[in-house]
Amino acid sequence: MIYFDNSATTKPYKEVLDSFLKVSSDYFANPSSLHRFGGQAEKLLSQAREQVAQLLQVKTNEIYFTSGGTESNNLAVKGAALRNRNKGKHLITSSVEHPSVRLAMEQLEQVGFDITYVPVDRNGRVSATDIEAAIRKDTSFISIMLVNNEVGTIQPIKEIGEMLKRYPTILFHVDAVQGIGKVPLTLHEDRIDLCSISGHKFHGLKGTGVLYVRDGVRITPLFSGGSQERALRSGTENVAGAVALAKALRMTFDRSTAGIENMRNIQNMLRQELSKNERIQINTPSENSAPHILNFSLNGIKSEVFIHALEEKEIFVSTTSACSSKKKTASTTLTAMGVPKATAESAVRISLSYDNTTEEALKVIEAIENSLKQLERVMK
Amino acid sequence: MIYFDNSATTKPYKEVLDSFLKVSSDYFANPSSLHRFGGQAEKLLSQAREQVAQLLQVKTNEIYFTSGGTESNNLAVKGAALRNRNKGKHLITSSVEHPSVRLAMEQLEQVGFDITYVPVDRNGRVSATDIEAAIRKDTSFISIMLVNNEVGTIQPIKEIGEMLKRYPTILFHVDAVQGIGKVPLTLHEDRIDLCSISGHKFHGLKGTGVLYVRDGVRITPLFSGGSQERALRSGTENVAGAVALAKALRMTFDRSTAGIENMRNIQNMLRQELSKNERIQINTPSENSAPHILNFSLNGIKSEVFIHALEEKEIFVSTTSACSSKKKTASTTLTAMGVPKATAESAVRISLSYDNTTEEALKVIEAIENSLKQLERVMK
Repeated sequence: MIYFDNSATTKPYKEVLDSFLKVSSDYFANPSSLHRFGGQAEKLLSQAREQVAQLLQVKTNEIYFTSGGTESNNLAVKGAALRNRNKGKHLITSSVEHPSVRLAMEQLEQVGFDITYVPVDRNGRVSATDIEAAIRKDTSFISIMLVNNEVGTIQPIKEIGEMLKRYPTILFHVDAVQGIGKVPLTLHEDRIDLCSISGHKFHGLKGTGVLYVRDGVRITPLFSGGSQERALRSGTENVAGAVALAKALRMTFDRSTAGIENMRNIQNMLRQELSKNERIQINTPSENSAPHILNFSLNGIKSEVFIHALEEKEIFVSTTSACSSKKKTASTTLTAMGVPKATAESAVRISLSYDNTTEEALKVIEAIENSLKQLERVMK
Repeated sequence: MIYFDNSATTKPYKEVLDSFLKVSSDYFANPSSLHRFGGQAEKLLSQAREQVAQLLQVKTNEIYFTSGGTESNNLAVKGAALRNRNKGKHLITSSVEHPSVRLAMEQLEQVGFDITYVPVDRNGRVSATDIEAAIRKDTSFISIMLVNNEVGTIQPIKEIGEMLKRYPTILFHVDAVQGIGKVPLTLHEDRIDLCSISGHKFHGLKGTGVLYVRDGVRITPLFSGGSQERALRSGTENVAGAVALAKALRMTFDRSTAGIENMRNIQNMLRQELSKNERIQINTPSENSAPHILNFSLNGIKSEVFIHALEEKEIFVSTTSACSSKKKTASTTLTAMGVPKATAESAVRISLSYDNTTEEALKVIEAIENSLKQLERVMK
């Protein structure tokens, strides 16, 4: 099996599963319980929080554990907008955000918020200038992703953060779910107030995530209750999941230099070889794009047909994003980039992990060529 | 170690952890991915859903996986209230609900909803008559727990459901987090529209829960995004967690007859022996109470002091509930029952699992007597 669908989800590291198992069976107490056994669980949770904070170079009290990227994004968008609605009901985002940001914005629109969707260029990139131009007196919140999940475009977070230093009352949220461990991010330096990450995108477990909330920033919780996570996210803490997330993040960061270089090499090789085929159009921009995603279209062949042709060769890739793969609508990102509908409907996304190899890439290139030839024969 | 704090959380069954591990490592794909590997994950998720539905005797499409009891309660309360606000902004609940229901209601109060908190009798029980008396023309939602988490009182869900058959437009939510596997519940028969359960309360994993939503009932999601769980709860599904929950529920139901009888015997033994001590007042009612909780007060001794005295003997029990144990305020439930403040502040909760034994209970009784004597000596 060649798994080239790492932007959909990744295989958990063995060490991550070991930690999860150890904590779940030996330290299963409720961290809110007053007794020593509860205290041990609480200590593990604190250590996980410290570790994540250290890795992200932020303060421990800026890390909140959630159930994943979608929760983190919804909590950031809705929590910030609702809490600060007296400061202004205008929100800004891009036209290529993940549905968990875009649809959270749409829900807010239904209760009286006003949203500006800043368009992207043909590379899928927003500009800090366009965002600044969209700012109004009543703008209270801006959400921009670090790396686009469908084509891999890196957004100019540093420039936007720099520009926003002149607008101190506007909260800035970054959805880093696809970017973390692939693209550098300096939260404090880049004036980021809120940032979402998801454990299962870097070999942690599904059902685990983090929301970074800068010290002093106040947002409304989505879950009320037992006041866990300093009342921002009530609910018995998934201690083993948090420990697993911290471990996965540490292992990822430990390996990131070589891992990123490896992915970049494979991406370059794929790009170079696939470009030679005149039926293939590469959608991922060659500049300002993450090292792990390569999106391309197969002129005249529907994505779904091609995904199944490849899986017969034990190769697993995606149609654009996993979230929207079953909706059979053309990719939001490609459409926003101005890619024609037919091209968007034949888009395929390859997404890599640190552990993929050039041998796998060579097999995938060969399989793509062969599948194309087979499908062309069928079509004739 | 004697673990008598099972209402705070339970030890995951070994088989549950095995399943979690197997699914996480061998079937880690995103169930939304179109390829066969994603399809396998989706199949496991569907099977887990079917199994839970069968165990709860409801339809498969009535089961939604969440991140736990707090999320299920918040989603039920806020989701139902917000979705049906045009039908009426009056909500009814009891004065002894878990904070994840009570505080969700309070959040709704801040945005214009009107809440009636129906009082309980000295046993911590609401009456269907009092609830009916509270119903107004604009009542759209009622939330009542199955079993109280602090003292174990069973609420008259069947009677309330029966009464509500005369009010077909009012949605009825039951927080069954503490009751499932301990007290019978027939969702369809009892006219229940929404019901919350939490995996880690019955030897499943933290971070997993279920919300039952009766077919045809519409509620507003808390998380928007990739439209998972039929758009009611977006976010990459925690497939391994759902499989683990289904397994834990099946194992629990398989053992429930003997398990419940065993807990009831231990509870009776504890009640009988502890009642003999004149310093001890039993707060859990002798009728209409769940088999696994025994709450008692130690006249003149603060709960926290006693918890720590017992943990020195490797016995782990709670002050009322884990969620509120660190707040150092007197138990909401005991206060609502009319228990004096001093008595409420000396309350201790023992909570059992199927696997606790009478031998453990005898040791706990002895330890309680000895700790009391020691503390009395210190106080003199």
